[in-house]
Formats: sequence, C-alpha cells, structure tokens
Amino acid sequence: MQYETKKRSILKAFSWRTWATITTAIIVFIFTGEFALAITVGFIEVFAKMALYFFHERLWQKVNFGKKEIPSFVLWFTGLPASGKKALADAVHRQLIADKLKVERLDSLDVRPLFPETGFSLEEVNRHVKRAGHLCAMLEKNGIIVVASFVSPYRQSRKFARDRAVNFVEVYMNTTVEACEQRDTKGHYAKARCGEYQNFPGVDVEYEKPVKPEITIEVDKVTIDDAAQQIIYYLRKNFINER
Amino acid sequence: MQYETKKRSILKAFSWRTWATITTAIIVFIFTGEFALAITVGFIEVFAKMALYFFHERLWQKVNFGKKEIPSFVLWFTGLPASGKKALADAVHRQLIADKLKVERLDSLDVRPLFPETGFSLEEVNRHVKRAGHLCAMLEKNGIIVVASFVSPYRQSRKFARDRAVNFVEVYMNTTVEACEQRDTKGHYAKARCGEYQNFPGVDVEYEKPVKPEITIEVDKVTIDDAAQQIIYYLRKNFINER
Repeated sequence: MQYETKKRSILKAFSWRTWATITTAIIVFIFTGEFALAITVGFIEVFAKMALYFFHERLWQKVNFGKKEIPSFVLWFTGLPASGKKALADAVHRQLIADKLKVERLDSLDVRPLFPETGFSLEEVNRHVKRAGHLCAMLEKNGIIVVASFVSPYRQSRKFARDRAVNFVEVYMNTTVEACEQRDTKGHYAKARCGEYQNFPGVDVEYEKPVKPEITIEVDKVTIDDAAQQIIYYLRKNFINER
Repeated sequence: MQYETKKRSILKAFSWRTWATITTAIIVFIFTGEFALAITVGFIEVFAKMALYFFHERLWQKVNFGKKEIPSFVLWFTGLPASGKKALADAVHRQLIADKLKVERLDSLDVRPLFPETGFSLEEVNRHVKRAGHLCAMLEKNGIIVVASFVSPYRQSRKFARDRAVNFVEVYMNTTVEACEQRDTKGHYAKARCGEYQNFPGVDVEYEKPVKPEITIEVDKVTIDDAAQQIIYYLRKNFINER
C-alpha cells in the first residue's frame, strides 16, 4: 500500500518552481525587455506558486484517475528433478527485481522445510503442490508477481494451481531423465536408483509432461541466459507493457 | 505494483496550469497595470509550461524519495467455535477496505473446502493453521494486510503463525463454552456432544487460551461495533498512521 509523503510534495514544488520561474522570467523579459521586472515577477511567483503547487499535489493524492496496477501473474516452472528449474527461475526472478517489479519467489526447497511432515507419496505431493498453487494465487490476486519452481510431476495438482490463478504461465523444462541424471550434482537420482528415495519422478514414478505449457524450454539446447530472455520476452509482451 | 499513466500526467498539467497561469497573469497585472500584457504572458506560458510540467511529472515517476508503504500486519482472530470471530473479523475487514487499504481476508471456512482432505485431529489442525500462518506471513511480507479468523485452538500452531509474521496482532475472543453453545445456530456443538464431530474444541479437546494476546474482546459484554472500534483504534495507533 503505497502513498506519497508531504516531503515528496515539497521537494517536487521546489524542483518544479526552479524550472517554471526561469521560464516565466524569460517570457516576461521577451515581452517587456525589462530585466528588473522579469526578476520581480519571477521572485513573487516563487512564493505564491510554491504553496499553490504543494496543495495541488496533496489534492491529486486523492485522485485515483491514471493510477494503474501492472497485471500480476504466476510463473510456474515444472520439470524433472535436476532439470534446472531453480537456476532458471532465479535468473528470471533477478531480472524482474531489476525491473523494479513486486515479485515473490517460491521454491519447493524453501517451502518443504517449513512443513517437514509432508512426504513424497502421490497424494502428499499433490497436496503440497495444491497448497503452493493456492498461495501463488493469493499473492497474484493481491498484485504480486510470483515465480514458483516445483517439480510438480502430476497434472492434477498443476491444473489446480492453474485454475486458481488468473494469469498462469507454465514453463516446462523439456529434457530427458538421462540428461538430468548427469546434471544431478546432489546425488538424488543415485539415491532413488538404490531405493533410498521412493516415488522419485523419472525413476519410480512418471513425470507427467504438460500438454499445453505456455513456454517450453529446450533445456539441453539453450543456455540459461537465453532461456531467461525467452521467458522475459514472453512476460514483457503479455503482462509488463510499457509503463 | 502501481504506476501512473501518461494520461494522469497530462491531466495534472492542465489542472496545474489553470491555477498557475491565473496567478502569473495577476502578478504581471499588479506590477505593470497592463491587462493585455498580463494576458499575453499568461497565454504564452500556458503552452511552454504545460509541456514542461508533463516532463517534470514523468521524471518524478522515476524518483522514489517520499514514496512510502504503510506497514502491513496480520490480524489473527482466535477463539472457540461460535465465539463470533467471523462476524467481528468481517466488520474490521470492511472498515479497513473503507480506509482504502490493501487487505486480504482469510477464514477457515474459505480455506478448508479447497483442501477437503484436511481433518480435525490435533496434528491435522496444527498443520492447517501453520499453512494458514505461512500464507498470512507471505502476504504481509508483500505489503498486504491480512485479516484471518481460525479457531486455532492450539498454542503450538498459533505460535508458528506469530513467529513467521513481522507484525502479528492476536485477537482473543474471550467467552465461555456455554455462551458459544447458546450462540451456535449451526448446531455444531450439538453434533460434537452426540459424537458426530470428534476433537471439537470446548467439547472433546481443550481450547488453549492465548497467554498474551495483543487484544482481548470480552465477547459477552460488548457489541460487535464496539469491539470493531476497539480493534481499529489499536491498528490506527500502531500501524496505520496519518498518511
């Protein structure tokens, strides 16, 4: 909830007056040729107009015309474990922050530790993803852009997240289990292969590919920077128009 | 994410120019006594300054000085079933909306139907309340005021909600089980008494009273309007200062 302080209005009055009085004095001088008169009019004007400007600003604080909200959206990254969701989502998030937008970043790795009782069965993953989707939608509804990255292997809960949002942009990390396994520096796939993890998407359970994602990233063919630019281009075109 | 359109800046330029040019013309007339000159200077000024004003406004859009956010907070209503949480929270919510603040309203009755699998065991209620607390904190962090009403009978999960928020205002609905049972038009207590509901706070399980709530409402002694005013007074004093 943003508002503008009285100090800002005062500073604007000074800033405006500097430019405007110089202009007035020049106009008066051009028409009368009298330098002293031009300065006197300018001098009087400084005080009268500065007070007037301040009240003009305060009045306009109450006028809502022409104050707009940038439409927010939920940018949802889905893909196999170690498909590069987090790194790409972080890159896009940084860019949106640099654009001075209000953005919240949600990653499965931040949410799960808060609720350690959440397991990895199909039912529990669906619940986890649905709750995350609900959270995203609430933030979006309140004007916050959300960058979310969850493996979210099941269509059912992804659809839930999509249905609750107004603008849902699904980013599918298109790659293969083999490529992810090679990329996996944390050894998650190895643990899944030897049975230490159960219900691991790509190993024990199927990762259900999105049918119509808004954006598909060909993970093994593009750099992170290019992929981030592809996404930013889409967002600029569809949501973040020129202000 | 709010911004101001070019149309707004143009309208402000017209509005400002009307007042300012009249002032300039008067000043010139006072000093020269020449009516025609006063009008001419004013006329020229209209065009030169309107363009200048527009660019001045656009420049100031980029200056953040003096743009402030009203601090947000989580207003959390807790109390026995049928203690009047929802009605009071709704009244406070309406008042905050009337004050043109950005507010989100969360009620257990809105959240539970989305996740029908959530039960009423101690563990499930704690989980439910913790998730709600997490959601509140995320909204608060992003500048949204949250008005939440949950029975939230257990200290453990209320503490979780409190710890995640920056400004947590706990409103305790102080009343007795008997009074709630009389007020209960939906027959929830009756169902709990005959065993249709289990783990019902006040009947099967203890409602754990808050130790140090920020606000205590003496439900059976005050009207809803008075209670709402008591809360609004607290919020105005602590968060919503003069803008």
